[in-house]
Amino acid sequence: MAITVVGSVAYDSIETPTGRRERCLGGAATYFSLAASFFTDVRVIAVVGEDFGAGDEAVFHARHIDTRGIERAAGKSFFWEGSYLENLNEAKTRTTDLNVFAAFEPKIPEAYRDSEFLFLANIDPLLQRQVREAMPQARMVAGDTMNYWIKDHRAALLEVLKGLDVLLINDTEARMLAGNNNLVRAARGVLAMGPRTLVIKHGEYGATAFFSEHSFGEKSDVARPPFRAPALPLEEVVDPTGAGDSFAGGFFGYLASQRAITPAAFRRAMFYGSVMGSFAVERFGTERLQELSRREIDDRFILFRELTHLD
Amino acid sequence: MAITVVGSVAYDSIETPTGRRERCLGGAATYFSLAASFFTDVRVIAVVGEDFGAGDEAVFHARHIDTRGIERAAGKSFFWEGSYLENLNEAKTRTTDLNVFAAFEPKIPEAYRDSEFLFLANIDPLLQRQVREAMPQARMVAGDTMNYWIKDHRAALLEVLKGLDVLLINDTEARMLAGNNNLVRAARGVLAMGPRTLVIKHGEYGATAFFSEHSFGEKSDVARPPFRAPALPLEEVVDPTGAGDSFAGGFFGYLASQRAITPAAFRRAMFYGSVMGSFAVERFGTERLQELSRREIDDRFILFRELTHLD
Repeated sequence: MAITVVGSVAYDSIETPTGRRERCLGGAATYFSLAASFFTDVRVIAVVGEDFGAGDEAVFHARHIDTRGIERAAGKSFFWEGSYLENLNEAKTRTTDLNVFAAFEPKIPEAYRDSEFLFLANIDPLLQRQVREAMPQARMVAGDTMNYWIKDHRAALLEVLKGLDVLLINDTEARMLAGNNNLVRAARGVLAMGPRTLVIKHGEYGATAFFSEHSFGEKSDVARPPFRAPALPLEEVVDPTGAGDSFAGGFFGYLASQRAITPAAFRRAMFYGSVMGSFAVERFGTERLQELSRREIDDRFILFRELTHLD
Repeated sequence: MAITVVGSVAYDSIETPTGRRERCLGGAATYFSLAASFFTDVRVIAVVGEDFGAGDEAVFHARHIDTRGIERAAGKSFFWEGSYLENLNEAKTRTTDLNVFAAFEPKIPEAYRDSEFLFLANIDPLLQRQVREAMPQARMVAGDTMNYWIKDHRAALLEVLKGLDVLLINDTEARMLAGNNNLVRAARGVLAMGPRTLVIKHGEYGATAFFSEHSFGEKSDVARPPFRAPALPLEEVVDPTGAGDSFAGGFFGYLASQRAITPAAFRRAMFYGSVMGSFAVERFGTERLQELSRREIDDRFILFRELTHLD
């Protein structure tokens, strides 16, 4: 099944203990769609400026990603500058220039309208809701958000959460959203807001899926116990940017490639999410995702199994 | 196989978000031996003061733990007071009164000398080494340590590490010991100091075992890939005190119960370690470990498998 993703396509200047890169191609929709493209067809909705060149678009096309929904606007693309020098687990933002993204009005190409999977990357919840409503045929909708929307746009965000099949956020965001420091209680609080399933990402410690009674279709009597996917212990994290979006892309891309969203398929999707996140951080920006092969992905999936399985 | 453990038997006054307890029975050797006692025979070497009563000793005897190596000295037992009000993952120490522990000279009962498994809990590395040398028959030796010994008693600690089959420490200690913030590189650095296998505990995120070429007997060509055991997502952590020692007890107790230390047995031991840690934190002090049954342990082992396994 095809996935439509709406989110940012941006340029990032990144400093990490390994070095520095200026204006890499980045943005949540970019990482997501590259990661998901190894599993299924992906269509992007975003806005870029006049600085978005043919070489950047070729990165998408090399992975057969549909870019007809990437609008060109007058001005510059979204630009972000961040540093991981102090803490590899959390970027320190130096610059955020929204540029053309400030007036983003998602436009959905006619050719995207049969997408059965929809991913609402981290953007204004009003836009997330607008896209969701404009694509009523989407039967599986996942989304992401961040502290800014949780704190200052809570009402709009809560509207989005009601309609999500899967919400993917990190520990800090889950605790903030639910107002509870205990992760299990925070998860229960977030599930009560509407999403049928919650995936909490723990950075270098992997991710945990928390299920509700509605996680797999019809309401069941009891929710399934949580499922935890590991992260790969990595000798060098060159650039953590995009790890979470790559997780989401691997996770949702794999789900979209499956005939049915069973508990077993969901667990494998969690592993593929972690696999894609582990590749993303091995090089700057999207470099590693661009040159990856499905063979490498499946080999690492086996490694993840060895890392966690008793037999 | 019987395990001999040397370490502290103490009284702890503990404050957590759930409440406060005064002078609970605690200490690394106490948590370790209670946890290990569900798997094998355990013998304790420690020193206590005149405040150690028959009721405290009965806690050990109820679990058939040999206390002949617990020496009674004039004075008071080791006392620790700590608070988890600010951070459930790290205690803030308010008081440490070593008392009789300050002059601890481990004495090994004759009846302990055939123990094939030896656990050196977190005490002065000079004492760890002394006990190790006094028990040459021990064919599997594991140990723990802490930031204080890593920083200020490094030379003595390095001597102990050379002879360890398994070192169990947490993330912070591994990074400090190796002088490297990346966990994989830190693990390699620590393994180069001598321990054949390193288990790094991640608190609420579980634990990872890092293997060397010598982890399973004869030197092999390559080290096995790491193995990660999860921690149970818990709705309430009542008291984190002793979680790491309970992990060590479950881990080492299970290993000692096995006919051979195979990679598969080691992986199961990691799970049993996590299982025992997850029980320990459910109540104050050793309360939960005291009333636990082997049936509950095995049920939770199955839950850990469901939490992590694809099929």
